[in-house]
Amino acid sequence: MRVEIWSDIACPWCYVGKARFEKGLEAFAHRDDVEVVHRSFELDPHRAKSDTGPVLEMLAKKYGRTLDEARAMEQHVATNAHAEGLGYRTEGRDHGNTFDIHRLLHLAKARGRQSELLDLAYRANFAEERSVFDAETLAALGVEAGLDEAEVRAVLADESAYAEAVREDEREAAELGANSVPFFVLDRRYGVSGGQPAEVFTQALEQAWQGRVLQPVGAEADAEACGPDGCEVPRA
Amino acid sequence: MRVEIWSDIACPWCYVGKARFEKGLEAFAHRDDVEVVHRSFELDPHRAKSDTGPVLEMLAKKYGRTLDEARAMEQHVATNAHAEGLGYRTEGRDHGNTFDIHRLLHLAKARGRQSELLDLAYRANFAEERSVFDAETLAALGVEAGLDEAEVRAVLADESAYAEAVREDEREAAELGANSVPFFVLDRRYGVSGGQPAEVFTQALEQAWQGRVLQPVGAEADAEACGPDGCEVPRA
Repeated sequence: MRVEIWSDIACPWCYVGKARFEKGLEAFAHRDDVEVVHRSFELDPHRAKSDTGPVLEMLAKKYGRTLDEARAMEQHVATNAHAEGLGYRTEGRDHGNTFDIHRLLHLAKARGRQSELLDLAYRANFAEERSVFDAETLAALGVEAGLDEAEVRAVLADESAYAEAVREDEREAAELGANSVPFFVLDRRYGVSGGQPAEVFTQALEQAWQGRVLQPVGAEADAEACGPDGCEVPRA
Repeated sequence: MRVEIWSDIACPWCYVGKARFEKGLEAFAHRDDVEVVHRSFELDPHRAKSDTGPVLEMLAKKYGRTLDEARAMEQHVATNAHAEGLGYRTEGRDHGNTFDIHRLLHLAKARGRQSELLDLAYRANFAEERSVFDAETLAALGVEAGLDEAEVRAVLADESAYAEAVREDEREAAELGANSVPFFVLDRRYGVSGGQPAEVFTQALEQAWQGRVLQPVGAEADAEACGPDGCEVPRA
């Protein structure tokens, strides 16, 4: 079975939701038969790359709240993160454009290191306050994830590298009707929206597992195929 | 959309079926949104690695036919291959155990080179009569596909490398009810068995595209999520 998770590194509920999904997966009997894939979704794709700044000020401005109110919003997420055993610092984090980290996550996917880089990126952004909007930090995270440094730097330096892969993920999200993240898609058949409780994920996994029945297309009888007993033989 | 193709390098209808699928894909309007993944299926998993020999003799023995009858069977496939613009030599090919080439295809998948290696392996086996049962040829094919030679040789030398990935593909095939190849699975929802005509694949792709509706699981209203307009805000 295959679970695709659309998310953004700048999305706190994606960070929390990933931990809840993993807890839900842990309780699923066929967990070893589940492949998990990260898909790109930018919350703020139109923000200029140079336009980074403190999360609290961004929140206050976005919602028309005071800094104290913004701090309370962050505290609410922090409480949920801590409940999942995740670090979460409510002060000193930056907000910005996540296109480059998504491009790098696609390089990591091609090299079999996506899961490693994803965990490092979330931790850097939410728990360690290393800026994922800074090329040097991204390069360091790539190397920590097991990628080749020269290749990481080449991708970061070339804005077109894996750009289409990011856009393609975002197009697919739109086609599937996802307009917020995290968004979980199981075998392209079931969708779970948001950082739901772990039990919801276990239930969704069980439902998708039960529903794994293929609908045949084409005339099976006429097919030209090979099996353990040989290929179909033309009439002698 | 995602198409998984279970096949074996030793399977002539997989070779022909892949070309027919690609022709069917070419006629599909959303072809650029289709990801194609190779899945392992061994026709002869219990054959000893050292047990290789001419295909014609294997066919004659397997079906209790004369060598001339076996030659006619191969000629039948060759006619179909040529109709797809594929080379196919009916004499001089060997048959054997394909476990190593499947393991190598999984390394290639991890390195983003699976499609390249798959095409090279089919061509080597069916059109060029390079033996894919020979470690030196496999190493050369891996390098031609863009893989790192040292890594290719390490995988070939270590029988456990990617062995579980091959077995897992084969377990999944059994779970999906596939007992012959090629077997095409579209978004884990539709199955096409055998090297069907290109139009069948186009039709299956169109059917799967229409059917891309996700069934929601979990209480969407309560979900904690972030969208372009921000994350859900706790009531002030």
